Amino acid sequence: MGRCSLLLLLLASLTPGAASPVSPSLRAPSSLPWSTSFGSRPTITPKYSIRYIQQKVDHFGFNIDRTFKQRYLIADNYWKEDGGSILFYTGNEGDIIWFCNNTGFMWDIAEEMKAMLVFAEHRYYGESLPFGADSFSDSRHLNFLTTEQALADFAKLIKYLKRTIPGARNQPVIALGGSYGGMLAAWFRMKYPHLVVGALASSAPIWQFNDLVPCDVFMKIVTTDFSQSGPNCSESIRRSWDAINRLAKKGPGLRWLSEALHLCTPLTKLQDVQHLKDWIAETWVNLAMVDYPYESNFLQPLPAWPVKVVCQYFKYSNVPDTLLLRNIFQALNVYYNYSGQAKCLNVSETATSSLGVQGWSYQACTEMVMPTCSDGVDDMFEPHSWNMKEYSDDCFKQWGVRPRPSWIPTMYGGKNISSHTNIIFSNGELDPWSGGGVTKDITDTLLAIVIPNGAHHLDLRASNALDPVSVQLTRSLEVKYMKQWVTDFYVRLRKMN
Amino acid sequence: MGRCSLLLLLLASLTPGAASPVSPSLRAPSSLPWSTSFGSRPTITPKYSIRYIQQKVDHFGFNIDRTFKQRYLIADNYWKEDGGSILFYTGNEGDIIWFCNNTGFMWDIAEEMKAMLVFAEHRYYGESLPFGADSFSDSRHLNFLTTEQALADFAKLIKYLKRTIPGARNQPVIALGGSYGGMLAAWFRMKYPHLVVGALASSAPIWQFNDLVPCDVFMKIVTTDFSQSGPNCSESIRRSWDAINRLAKKGPGLRWLSEALHLCTPLTKLQDVQHLKDWIAETWVNLAMVDYPYESNFLQPLPAWPVKVVCQYFKYSNVPDTLLLRNIFQALNVYYNYSGQAKCLNVSETATSSLGVQGWSYQACTEMVMPTCSDGVDDMFEPHSWNMKEYSDDCFKQWGVRPRPSWIPTMYGGKNISSHTNIIFSNGELDPWSGGGVTKDITDTLLAIVIPNGAHHLDLRASNALDPVSVQLTRSLEVKYMKQWVTDFYVRLRKMN
Repeated sequence: MGRCSLLLLLLASLTPGAASPVSPSLRAPSSLPWSTSFGSRPTITPKYSIRYIQQKVDHFGFNIDRTFKQRYLIADNYWKEDGGSILFYTGNEGDIIWFCNNTGFMWDIAEEMKAMLVFAEHRYYGESLPFGADSFSDSRHLNFLTTEQALADFAKLIKYLKRTIPGARNQPVIALGGSYGGMLAAWFRMKYPHLVVGALASSAPIWQFNDLVPCDVFMKIVTTDFSQSGPNCSESIRRSWDAINRLAKKGPGLRWLSEALHLCTPLTKLQDVQHLKDWIAETWVNLAMVDYPYESNFLQPLPAWPVKVVCQYFKYSNVPDTLLLRNIFQALNVYYNYSGQAKCLNVSETATSSLGVQGWSYQACTEMVMPTCSDGVDDMFEPHSWNMKEYSDDCFKQWGVRPRPSWIPTMYGGKNISSHTNIIFSNGELDPWSGGGVTKDITDTLLAIVIPNGAHHLDLRASNALDPVSVQLTRSLEVKYMKQWVTDFYVRLRKMN
Repeated sequence: MGRCSLLLLLLASLTPGAASPVSPSLRAPSSLPWSTSFGSRPTITPKYSIRYIQQKVDHFGFNIDRTFKQRYLIADNYWKEDGGSILFYTGNEGDIIWFCNNTGFMWDIAEEMKAMLVFAEHRYYGESLPFGADSFSDSRHLNFLTTEQALADFAKLIKYLKRTIPGARNQPVIALGGSYGGMLAAWFRMKYPHLVVGALASSAPIWQFNDLVPCDVFMKIVTTDFSQSGPNCSESIRRSWDAINRLAKKGPGLRWLSEALHLCTPLTKLQDVQHLKDWIAETWVNLAMVDYPYESNFLQPLPAWPVKVVCQYFKYSNVPDTLLLRNIFQALNVYYNYSGQAKCLNVSETATSSLGVQGWSYQACTEMVMPTCSDGVDDMFEPHSWNMKEYSDDCFKQWGVRPRPSWIPTMYGGKNISSHTNIIFSNGELDPWSGGGVTKDITDTLLAIVIPNGAHHLDLRASNALDPVSVQLTRSLEVKYMKQWVTDFYVRLRKMN
């Protein structure tokens, strides 16, 4: 599978040519809220214990009684039995240690919340593999990779912790998560309100399903980020696709493009050009998501406000194709070579191996169908419609399963969620996934916080001297609400006793 | 499987000797809220259409894409698009037509509620068999018989009806059910509040799980019913077990007992005596459940207040063993021979074939583990402790699966359900299952109604001239609350538009 990023898969799904046999993962139709806060440097160095719990492989059937070891991390340095709380991270599509090290917010507030921190790994990711090395071998082994099973794991884990840790029994638990993990946090509060008093769902696009939001909203936000980060920026990128096409069709065009972009592997056929464009487009999407206000370290180190840095190369309008492509190279170089160490650019590498590519590809082919599209007019990308039939066929080819695109709204309520309580939905305004998120209060306990100048779950990252005031305020509000949930819990508890 | 009643299975599970190979079903450890209102005569003759919907066999996995036909009944005679509602019966463990014909309450209120009536058959019961005749063949085929799958069927059906019936889209749906179906109605509102505005859960023992209520509460209530229905009644029954034991040990005791009780098949060995006692005990339990205030027709026709009629045979204390057994026969005769047509009593028949014995036995061996016990002191039964190990072993022998007794409280919240809204829990005070039910208000929208002089979901039966005032008031209250939910729904709808 290599290290193809999930976002590359997202774009591959929009691309007719993407079904050509580049690699199995590139054929995978997929769409993904990019998870985690990359390369945060937690204010408090995480000190946790690694533990395991035996979980049923199938919570919803009794024929298979097999169990597997789910990994979780636990830190109780700041936990107080008296008036304390348990902050429970609902792990998403990757290695839980990576998430733990990149969710500085929880470490930053542990003392104030007198909180025990728990980070639960999502089944089929990291070390929590229900069938070990065979977990991804076929649809039979993958059958238990669903949101419902993952939530049931969390439920069992919480019950187990309360039963086995002295003093934990009468403590309020709060679910926290970002991106896909943010959806899980929100859904966990909706489905298991008896186990968590509330949820903080950061950058959770719970409405990026079916027809709940227009499929073009994602790419529009990426485009806005670029157009607001410099003059002519999104226009230049929009023009670049045709420029690439024109150059590719000329005699020595492929060679020229390969050299101008310093590609490690030269383009040799026209099919490679589509792959190149997908990879470039994915880079812009990634940049929009991780457009953080300070230097951060993702796959490659990135400067502060990387989209602004990129846009410096697109200041001038109507430059010739060749100059535009040289500027594209400079821009890509910001993302792939901020350290200055790279000798060439590799079009098949973009994402960290801590993310579970196979697992997410399967989830995107079953429950997590998140339509995206572009029209090249209201956004800066090539036009790609959302084709459910093609998507489904590709899924069937790759995994032997067909997606059920209306299932998530049926299960989790779609836009009709007002009967639930105590969920904070936070979204960064720069984050393309905010388009599928909850950005307006639904009731006085289903709250939306929009973070101007915030990228993908910026609020979950460790505090930083360069944080905009908006995210500092957001975190204060979040702590205020969470403390209120804790207070309410203890008031109820005292009434009952 | 014969027609062994599910309640017989309940008692078999309490009986050490029950594991002897009488019949497969008798070996099944099981416990069951007896469902439906037997033999009601609806005020309005049901006129419904029989329909089918294709359902996924497995809503929670993608490896098996097979579908099956779920049956449902629909009646729209009184439905009004303008300001109307949809009353959705969450079918339980039996044939849906039988339930439909025995839930007169819904028919009685259809006009007042301007309601479309829908009765959804529970998978693995009636005609809704996921694998046809093979559905019960082994644990692999039975794997999809769970409450979660059943609720998902209901969710898909509601979405389908709203999508396909003109005018149904913006209508409030209310879930209604009795006994196990009452639990499903409550759980459906808890898990899918976006699909139903509220639930009426009649005689739903949602707390008869794990250690949420003492296991002896069920048998105590049966006993109270008998002691309140006549002097010496429960005492005589309590004495009868030893009397049977003493008689059985005498030389011609088995023959004498067989003759005195007019058994169709004479007792031949001591093991038969345990079976006989189980069957008698089950009869008392059944009588307590269907202790309705008017003539009703269950397996056999029954007189009004049948427990009172039975107790007339136990007026005198300290009668000799032989006379006591003759009185027991008279009492059994009330239940099994009110029509006067029976020539003998058959210890292997007690329940209607409309109930799905196999399905429930499996459910009781997986999720629906409802502990019961008796001590012979605070109740009138022989002492039987609850033995989870033995229960589990018996389940494994019969179905190849092991029960998960703590799963239902983990999934549905146990006693910690106060964050939900709009559920009415009604319980008849005479009903032994009320011991595991919600009999006190939890919040101002999680309401409990207790019906003095009410047996098992009396309120769901058609109105009857002999109904006690208590049940008439209960039904009025239920309608009042349901109308409020409907009003609230339309107010919200108007605000949104």
